[in-house]
Amino acid sequence: MTSFLSKLASKFPKDRCLTDPVDCYAYSYDNSRKHFPPQAVVFPENAEEIREVILLCNEYAVPVTPRGRGTGTAGGSIPVAGGVALSLERMRKILEVDAKNRVIVAEPGVLNAEIQEAARPHGLFWPPDPSSSAYCSIGGNLATSAGGPHAVKYGTTRDHVLGLKAVTGAGKAIRAGCYTTKGVVGYDLTRLIVGSEGTLAVITEATLKLTPLPEKTGGIAAHYRDAESCAQAILAIMAQPCTPAALEFLDSGSLDLIRSKNPGMLPQASRAMLMIEVDGADIEGAARAILSACENSGLIEASEVADSRALWAARRALSPLLRDIAPKKINEDIVVPVSRLPELLSGLRELAGKYGIANVNFGHAGNGNIHVNLLVDPDDPGVTGRAEECLSGVFDLVLSMNGTLSGEHGVGREKMPYVPREIDADTLDLMRAIKSVFDPKGILNPGKLFP
Amino acid sequence: MTSFLSKLASKFPKDRCLTDPVDCYAYSYDNSRKHFPPQAVVFPENAEEIREVILLCNEYAVPVTPRGRGTGTAGGSIPVAGGVALSLERMRKILEVDAKNRVIVAEPGVLNAEIQEAARPHGLFWPPDPSSSAYCSIGGNLATSAGGPHAVKYGTTRDHVLGLKAVTGAGKAIRAGCYTTKGVVGYDLTRLIVGSEGTLAVITEATLKLTPLPEKTGGIAAHYRDAESCAQAILAIMAQPCTPAALEFLDSGSLDLIRSKNPGMLPQASRAMLMIEVDGADIEGAARAILSACENSGLIEASEVADSRALWAARRALSPLLRDIAPKKINEDIVVPVSRLPELLSGLRELAGKYGIANVNFGHAGNGNIHVNLLVDPDDPGVTGRAEECLSGVFDLVLSMNGTLSGEHGVGREKMPYVPREIDADTLDLMRAIKSVFDPKGILNPGKLFP
Repeated sequence: MTSFLSKLASKFPKDRCLTDPVDCYAYSYDNSRKHFPPQAVVFPENAEEIREVILLCNEYAVPVTPRGRGTGTAGGSIPVAGGVALSLERMRKILEVDAKNRVIVAEPGVLNAEIQEAARPHGLFWPPDPSSSAYCSIGGNLATSAGGPHAVKYGTTRDHVLGLKAVTGAGKAIRAGCYTTKGVVGYDLTRLIVGSEGTLAVITEATLKLTPLPEKTGGIAAHYRDAESCAQAILAIMAQPCTPAALEFLDSGSLDLIRSKNPGMLPQASRAMLMIEVDGADIEGAARAILSACENSGLIEASEVADSRALWAARRALSPLLRDIAPKKINEDIVVPVSRLPELLSGLRELAGKYGIANVNFGHAGNGNIHVNLLVDPDDPGVTGRAEECLSGVFDLVLSMNGTLSGEHGVGREKMPYVPREIDADTLDLMRAIKSVFDPKGILNPGKLFP
Repeated sequence: MTSFLSKLASKFPKDRCLTDPVDCYAYSYDNSRKHFPPQAVVFPENAEEIREVILLCNEYAVPVTPRGRGTGTAGGSIPVAGGVALSLERMRKILEVDAKNRVIVAEPGVLNAEIQEAARPHGLFWPPDPSSSAYCSIGGNLATSAGGPHAVKYGTTRDHVLGLKAVTGAGKAIRAGCYTTKGVVGYDLTRLIVGSEGTLAVITEATLKLTPLPEKTGGIAAHYRDAESCAQAILAIMAQPCTPAALEFLDSGSLDLIRSKNPGMLPQASRAMLMIEVDGADIEGAARAILSACENSGLIEASEVADSRALWAARRALSPLLRDIAPKKINEDIVVPVSRLPELLSGLRELAGKYGIANVNFGHAGNGNIHVNLLVDPDDPGVTGRAEECLSGVFDLVLSMNGTLSGEHGVGREKMPYVPREIDADTLDLMRAIKSVFDPKGILNPGKLFP
C-alpha cells in the first residue's frame, strides 16, 4: 500500500490527493451513516486522470470507489474495502448547453441544481429531481438512476440520458449512446451503466436530454379520514388519463410528526394526505379531472393551492423532523404496483404491530414508490433483532406484491443481503459476469450490489 | 447436422419443426430482401422449448436466429450462417392486461397492433408505432427498440418496457427489470437486451408500460417553397415548449413521387412538406403554437386538417410508390441533431450530384431521424460502386454532424460494416465481451452487429 500511495501521490498535486486519515475521514461516509475510511482521496480533473488512477489500482489490486457528493442513503459511495475514494467533485464543467437540440453535456461533478440553472433560461429542465438536488451531483444521479416526485409524469434518470463517456474498471475509455433522441447502433451501454452504482465504470461525461418547462404549474392538497380511502384516491387518479406531475402521499405517522412541531398546519381529522402537482397548458382542466378523482367517502377536503410553495410546505416541514429522528430510523424506498398500495399500507400496519416497531410512510405514490421508515427506539430491549425481522418482513411483503426493493436509492451496501430475494441466481450470475467484463480485477466499488 | 436435425425433430411435433428446404425458404429472408436459408425452422410455444433448442444448438455448435415477423429492413432476422430459424410467431398470448397499473404482459409473438387493441378499451396505448405495426411482433419491436412517428413525443420501445423474461445464448432463463415504473435493483438488463437484435438472448415474455390515450388529436399540414425553410420550421417547432405528437417531413423527391400517381393531391409549388400531429387536452392551443412556429418566408400554406386520416394521406400514398421502386433503392434511417437538419439536406443534395444518384428523403424530423433512400438505376453502368461510395458519404456526413447510423431499423447485417465508424474499438470490444457472457459459443444470431 505504501508503494501504491507514493505512486498515486506522484501523479497529482498535493491538494488533489489526500492520504492523511484526518483528511480522508470526510470521504468515509455518506447518508447511510456508515463509516469506512479510504487510504487516499483523489480529485481527478479529467477522464485521463481517472484512467490513470484506475490503471494504478488494477496494478496494485487496490479498491477504488467513485463518489459524487455522498448524498446517497444506500451506502453506494462508501469505500467499504478501503483503498481510493475517487471524488468527482472537481469535474464541474458544463461542456455544452445546446438549447436547439435540448441537450446539455456535463462532467459528473456538476450539481443537479446547476443543470437546472443552465437549462432554465432556455425554457428547459432536466426532469430527475431527487430531494437532494441542490447538492447532489449528476454523476451520482446517473449512478443510481435517481428519481424524485416528478418521476410519475417524467420518468427517472435513465429516461433522460442520451449518452455517456466512461472509464471501465479495466481502465478503458469508452463512449456509450449518442447525441440524438433516437439511436440503436450497438448495445445500450448507456442504460447498463446508469444505475450500476459505480461498479462497472466511472462516468466522465454525460449527454443529458432536456425537457421543455411546463407552461403552468398548479397544486392540489387532499386530506383523508384514513389511509385506505387515500390509497383508493391514488388509484383513481392514476386510472384517469391526466397523469399528475407529482403525486405524493403522507401517512398518519408523517402527519403526526408534522403536527408535533407545527400545530394548526393540518386539518385535525386528516389521517392521510396527498400533495398533487399538475402542469401543462391546461392546468384548470387537469385540476378538475384530479379533484374529481380525489373524491370518495373518506375525503375530508381537497382544494387547489394557489402557491405551489404552500403545497410543499407540509412535505418540507417533515424533512427536518425526519432528520431529528434519523439515528433511530431505518429508511427504505420500496415500490409496489399502484393497485397494491392499499394492501401495502395495511400490511405495514400489521408488521408494526407484530414487531412492536412503528413505521412512518410517505413518498411517490403515483409510482407506488413509498419511503418506509421504521422507527427504532434504542432504549427498547431487543429492538435490533426485531427491527431486522420487521425489515425482512417488509421486503417479503413488497416482493409478494410484484414490487421491488428500491425505486431510487439503489442497493449499495444497505440492501445487498436482500438482492437474492428479488433477483434469481442465474440472473445474478449473469450480472456478476457482466461486472467481470467491465472490471476483471473487481477493483471498482467492491462490496456493493452483489452479496 | 443430420444428427442435430433428427434430435431437434424428436423434440417437436412435425408442424412445429420444418426441415424441408421448400418450407424453410419463407424463413430465409426479411424486408432487407437478402436470402439465407436455414436448415430448420422451429416454432416454440414456450420458454422451456426455446431453452431446449438453444441448449441443443450449443451442443452441436449450430447457429440459431430468433425471428419475429421478418419485417425488419436491416436483415436482423435472416439466418446468414444457416442453422435454425427460431420463429416466435406461435407465442401469441397476452398474459395479462392490468389496466390499473397500466401494464400489459405478453409473449414475443403478439403483434404490435394486438397490444394496441388490448389496451384501447382501457383508454391506454403502447407508444412504439413502427409503420409495420399491423403485422410486426412486439418481440421484433423490442429486439430493435422500434420507434415510429410518435417517438418525438413518446420515445421509443426502450422507454416503454418495464421488464423481460429471456433465455440467453447459453440457455439460461433469466428475468430482467420489474413490474413497476420505478426499480433500480441490479443492472438494467432489460434495456441491454432491448435493441440487441437477438444476439444476446431470446425474449420469452415482456412487461410493457402503457400510456393513457390522448384526449384529443389534431393535425396540421404545412407546405414550403424549399427544403431550407421547411428545415427552419422544424427547428422552430422543436424550440417551443409544445412538443408535437408527430412531426414528419417529406422532401421534394417524396412529393414528386406522390404527384406522379396522385396529380392534384399536393399544392403545385410545394417542395417540402410537414405533417404534424398534436394531441392532449388543449389541441387548439397546441395547434396555434405550432402554426405560429411554422411561419417563415418560405411557407406556402399551413393549415389544420380536420380528419387525421387526411393528414396522413400523402404519407400513405408514398408507401406503395416506395415499394414499387424498392428493388432499386437503398433505404437508410440515419439520425442527426435537429439543428443540423438544414446541413444534412444540403449535404445529401451535394452527394446526389457528386455520385449521380438521386435521393428521396422523408421521416421523423422531430427526432432528426430521416429515411434516406438512394435511388439506384440498375441500367446505369457502374452504379453499384457509385451507390456504395455515395452511401459511405452519407454515413460520413451523418457522423460528422454528431449523428447516428440508425434511429430505429437497427444494424442487422446491412449496416454492420459501418459500425466501427460510429463506435470506437474499445467500446466495440466491450460489447463483444458482453455478447460472450450471454452467448459464450456465439450461436445466437451470428454475423450480425459486429464486423
